[in-house]
Amino acid sequence: MVLFRRLLGDVLRSRRVEQGRTLRQLSGDARVSLGYMSEIERGQKEASSELLASICAALDVPLSEILSEVADAVALEEAAMAVRLERVELTSRPLPTDDPRGDVVASAA
Amino acid sequence: MVLFRRLLGDVLRSRRVEQGRTLRQLSGDARVSLGYMSEIERGQKEASSELLASICAALDVPLSEILSEVADAVALEEAAMAVRLERVELTSRPLPTDDPRGDVVASAA
Repeated sequence: MVLFRRLLGDVLRSRRVEQGRTLRQLSGDARVSLGYMSEIERGQKEASSELLASICAALDVPLSEILSEVADAVALEEAAMAVRLERVELTSRPLPTDDPRGDVVASAA
Repeated sequence: MVLFRRLLGDVLRSRRVEQGRTLRQLSGDARVSLGYMSEIERGQKEASSELLASICAALDVPLSEILSEVADAVALEEAAMAVRLERVELTSRPLPTDDPRGDVVASAA
């Protein structure tokens, strides 16, 4: 399952790191505790909409830009999951009865 | 302040209505109570990432598509807010001292 909070955390962290700021600096500016900010970045806690707005303001990045990046990251994961699912279906599909791979073939050696 | 949950609720509701489904049907498919689903659509409650994934699955719409629509709606609101802010700044700016509108002008009547 693709979880919004995990990819949101990734995007928020990468923006903060790009700006060369520490977790402590950002949590101070966004008025959230250091521990909570860290859990949000690691995708372990959900950020309320008010807190998300506050973090975006502290990063000076519009919420729409953050959400758009998260949507792109989610789309990539969805595509990767679809490929994995297709592979599992291909390998677990029973062989048709007239498939030569279903027959016992004597070794040529 | 542009709140994620409000625009998320709008997007989820419009997708459900497009599909001609009732709140009761969707809440059953997404395994969430009717009241909670209603509050999410009205932007009054935050949906956890697990619940959001479940609602997207019940709507048969990828999470990335929902987030992308929400990002667009947020961008529109941000633009509208910027215009309103600019108007307020223009009207609340003190008139320059040599501005003719600052002078008392006798009536011609």
